[in-house]
Amino acid sequence: MEQVDTTERLRQLRQLMSKHKVDIYIVPSEDAHSSEYIAPTDARREFICGFTGSAGTAIVTHDKAALATDGRYFNQASKQLDDNWTLLKQGLQDVPTWQEWTVEQAEDGKAVGVDPTTITAPEGKKLAEKIKKKGGKDLVGVAANLVDEVWGSKKPARPNEPVKVLGMEYAGKTFGDKIEELRKELDKKKAAGFVVSMLDEIAWLFNLRGSDIPYNPVFFSYAVVTPTTATLYVDESKLEEKVKGHLEGVNIRPYDAIFTDLTTLSSSEPATNGSTESKAPKRKYLVSTKASWALHQALGGEEKVDEVRSPVGDSKAVKNETELEGMRQCHIRDGAALSEFFAWLEHELVQKGTSLDEVQAADKLEEIRSKRDKFVGLSFDTISSTGPNAAVIHYKPEPGNCSTIDPKKVYLCDSGAQYLDGTTDTTRTLHFGEPTEMEREAYTLVLKGNIALELAVFPKGTSGFALDTLARQFLWASGLEYRHGTGHGVGSYLNVHEGPIGIGTRVQYSEVPLSIGNVISDEPGYYEDGNFGIRIENIVMVKEVQTKHKFGDKPYLGFEHVTMTPMCRKLIDTSMLTERERDWLNAYHKEVLEKTGGFFKDDQRTREWLERECAPY
Amino acid sequence: MEQVDTTERLRQLRQLMSKHKVDIYIVPSEDAHSSEYIAPTDARREFICGFTGSAGTAIVTHDKAALATDGRYFNQASKQLDDNWTLLKQGLQDVPTWQEWTVEQAEDGKAVGVDPTTITAPEGKKLAEKIKKKGGKDLVGVAANLVDEVWGSKKPARPNEPVKVLGMEYAGKTFGDKIEELRKELDKKKAAGFVVSMLDEIAWLFNLRGSDIPYNPVFFSYAVVTPTTATLYVDESKLEEKVKGHLEGVNIRPYDAIFTDLTTLSSSEPATNGSTESKAPKRKYLVSTKASWALHQALGGEEKVDEVRSPVGDSKAVKNETELEGMRQCHIRDGAALSEFFAWLEHELVQKGTSLDEVQAADKLEEIRSKRDKFVGLSFDTISSTGPNAAVIHYKPEPGNCSTIDPKKVYLCDSGAQYLDGTTDTTRTLHFGEPTEMEREAYTLVLKGNIALELAVFPKGTSGFALDTLARQFLWASGLEYRHGTGHGVGSYLNVHEGPIGIGTRVQYSEVPLSIGNVISDEPGYYEDGNFGIRIENIVMVKEVQTKHKFGDKPYLGFEHVTMTPMCRKLIDTSMLTERERDWLNAYHKEVLEKTGGFFKDDQRTREWLERECAPY
Repeated sequence: MEQVDTTERLRQLRQLMSKHKVDIYIVPSEDAHSSEYIAPTDARREFICGFTGSAGTAIVTHDKAALATDGRYFNQASKQLDDNWTLLKQGLQDVPTWQEWTVEQAEDGKAVGVDPTTITAPEGKKLAEKIKKKGGKDLVGVAANLVDEVWGSKKPARPNEPVKVLGMEYAGKTFGDKIEELRKELDKKKAAGFVVSMLDEIAWLFNLRGSDIPYNPVFFSYAVVTPTTATLYVDESKLEEKVKGHLEGVNIRPYDAIFTDLTTLSSSEPATNGSTESKAPKRKYLVSTKASWALHQALGGEEKVDEVRSPVGDSKAVKNETELEGMRQCHIRDGAALSEFFAWLEHELVQKGTSLDEVQAADKLEEIRSKRDKFVGLSFDTISSTGPNAAVIHYKPEPGNCSTIDPKKVYLCDSGAQYLDGTTDTTRTLHFGEPTEMEREAYTLVLKGNIALELAVFPKGTSGFALDTLARQFLWASGLEYRHGTGHGVGSYLNVHEGPIGIGTRVQYSEVPLSIGNVISDEPGYYEDGNFGIRIENIVMVKEVQTKHKFGDKPYLGFEHVTMTPMCRKLIDTSMLTERERDWLNAYHKEVLEKTGGFFKDDQRTREWLERECAPY
Repeated sequence: MEQVDTTERLRQLRQLMSKHKVDIYIVPSEDAHSSEYIAPTDARREFICGFTGSAGTAIVTHDKAALATDGRYFNQASKQLDDNWTLLKQGLQDVPTWQEWTVEQAEDGKAVGVDPTTITAPEGKKLAEKIKKKGGKDLVGVAANLVDEVWGSKKPARPNEPVKVLGMEYAGKTFGDKIEELRKELDKKKAAGFVVSMLDEIAWLFNLRGSDIPYNPVFFSYAVVTPTTATLYVDESKLEEKVKGHLEGVNIRPYDAIFTDLTTLSSSEPATNGSTESKAPKRKYLVSTKASWALHQALGGEEKVDEVRSPVGDSKAVKNETELEGMRQCHIRDGAALSEFFAWLEHELVQKGTSLDEVQAADKLEEIRSKRDKFVGLSFDTISSTGPNAAVIHYKPEPGNCSTIDPKKVYLCDSGAQYLDGTTDTTRTLHFGEPTEMEREAYTLVLKGNIALELAVFPKGTSGFALDTLARQFLWASGLEYRHGTGHGVGSYLNVHEGPIGIGTRVQYSEVPLSIGNVISDEPGYYEDGNFGIRIENIVMVKEVQTKHKFGDKPYLGFEHVTMTPMCRKLIDTSMLTERERDWLNAYHKEVLEKTGGFFKDDQRTREWLERECAPY
């Protein structure tokens, strides 16, 4: 992984900080829509510090610079940061959070600056409070982005790709119906309207897809829905006539007009849907807790706004029958592509002795996937990693700067694709030679956790926080652990990571119960720095299950797996499995064979590989 | 369970509400120290509504009255409330929280009143904010307690029992050392001092014990510790000369003087421990998040106070070696008492055919316990419950108003005692006849959960929130569930329930990792209203465990059980147990027999009972 010399960039940034009278400057990794994956034009945090991971916050003072990131990226960040930077390993004992570190730097009356479009309102308000409480001056929203000024003419332009309509055969519900449901929520909450700020929520709400951000079929936009109106803020040049036709009844306004429009809207009397009751409290606009501080300020701040977990995000996470069936179908096609790739890879490495690097393998996988029906593109950078690279949790092999795959070490492949009928995300860890005892032990413990989570039954109302331990329990009992979450929500031909659900130790997951129709990953792992990494990821969908009893008259829920490619036979130590786990494994492999075998009628190599891997124990 | 006619009490309260210009009045169940168990003088919520459970909040408007309580008490509350009251079942879907209900009543500009000593500052502030946000007027701290005024001369006096010194052979650490450790915390947090508001924290900090609150060896007091001073607010008449001698160096001030003293303290320049740096931010007083709104206001509010999880509570929860050994020892004596009682009960009910009611059984258990070495008293009202009463989670049999024990139904006994060397709390569910299939199934599922939790291994940093599901998983898989937490912290000859740790779905448990030295209960259950109830409770202590590997160089933790009385042989369906569970059960029973058998050299009946129940499978 390359290092960038950030000395000159930091010098210029510090000059601008002085000019804008801020002593400390925060550079979050998010764009104005709180996106996890961003367009190159928004990669300010990467530009300023050189670290390319998807999560992290940079903080620059006049004499220090720190990058805070989580366990997935400790390894990568320590390689990519130059000597100007200190790495704050988030989550480790005695390491301050980036907020604590910032507050500490600000203690003696210093001012902290941030571009208010790049930080959420709750985050901004909380940080401002802490800074002031601990003797700092304040958090200042600096309208111009100072990193952009340093970046100058070399900064990539904002993408302006065309927007497409997603047909009913994939969306399963009209956008009119979705908006009506949102209006019911607004009515329940007595709200004047909802400002939709997250790009995937807008794409879902209007049954549109774009390609402004790599891997995420979204387009730069905002939307405002009131009891009587729906307005989409998007550059009109992105919309063909067909799309305009689809959007009948929706007002179209320029992307940048959102800020001035919100200021106007919030100062006028909000629509009350015909009610003339004067005693009723004035209706407020709702924004998501992920909306930017800048949006919040445009609406008039605290007094004018109610922050809620996005009702659009909540609805989007509950997939309808069309979307669920799409998920099943695209995972069958995708699972077959993976098996074809694994069989090819084994053949090349073992039978032919070909030397292949990680990128060549990833490219072959993309080539195979791209031939599948309804394929649109990948859903994230393929993690194709050999041996020690597999321990870099979000490893990204670069052409010309990656390793040759060593058939005597583990090979971890975490990859996924966008199909018109759904989004896939699968991790398999393989071995083409003789795994070590530790590799088999770790793989089997991870597999046991993966199975335990999938087999969990839980009453309605249970969150992913409560289930996380089920996936970790076997590793823990052996003194092993992984430093990432266990599951993330997955979009329907949308972002591969989506909220609000999740399985993990983040406390926000405890606030969102899993519901029938949720689609989520099940991906425990184990990583030994410098040695090897294991991860097993299946996508599962929440469904109601039948239980012997039914206490409290509420539904009991469980999971249905959709991922369809086998586990690695060589890495499983069956003596560590219970009878129930072995039964699960046999049933799973039988299903994989049944559902994907048909793809390989004329492909003897893959058929043989699949039959061998899926043979019953 | 008796009902009280609350019509006249409510009429008078509403009159007082009008006089004090509040439209809604909140009556929490806590005293001024946020105590769970309270003295009769503080039982205002019980007085106003008739419900006697340990948790719940009453809210009275001019035309409505509501009592909110949790799943443990749904059954009991619905029996005890008269027609004036609506029961708000907290935690059920679509039932508003008591705060939401209050806010709703206040919506059109109404004022809500509360005695500010009976609500914590965070709770008060949050509620005030919500009331105002939703169109209510405000939350008003009414200095006089309106329920006390209705209660009048019939209200019991505040107890004033003598305070005793707890010797080093039980406390294991001098109060001087404890105060020095607290001062280190104050220094780390740059605080002017800590106001100790919880009664058990004060008793622990000063190595004192009292008896002002039934079952809880505490005494009415406050304390303030600064870098240079320690002040105990307690009525001096409670302190014998010996106690005053023990308290050398501690200022003694009257109990009620705390409010005026805090006002004076916070307006003067706080002690800075010799530092003369004028640029340093002014040091603030720390209060626990459990401190009352009244204390908070006396200190000068927001600007002058930092709210923290109590550092005294955190230290108290980590028992020292002397306390841990005391826990082991008192549980052996207590377990032997329980076995003697169960053997007696079986003999009376089955062999002799004696008719015994629940209170007679509880009295016999107390009589047996009271003969044990170092016995001080019970640690809570014994739950002695037969058949359907066992489904009332916090059932309290009353003399003359309880059931005769039916040997053909389950008998659930949840009880504990205070000993000089520790506090016990044990639940066993027994059957003296032929259990139904469902009773055996439920008992065995509960037992499997109890064992799974005890056998859990987890890395340092894991909270009781993350472990809760382990105890529930087997019940869930069968469509069963229990509506209470799985574990509470236990004091050392102190309150039987103590924070901040806990095992359960309350989100605050996620904030406190379990630590070596914590003592906590492991008590899953299952309850069928009107039919039967099952609960199995052991006390366990957190210890470091040896694991095969040790990822991340942090300790892996597990539990050591201290409870020493057998599980119920008749209720276990061994076909539902794994080999590992059967091994655990055999090892546990062997240990119970070894550690408590010696008590019954001259007691053939108990010896035979114990040997039968502890026989290996």
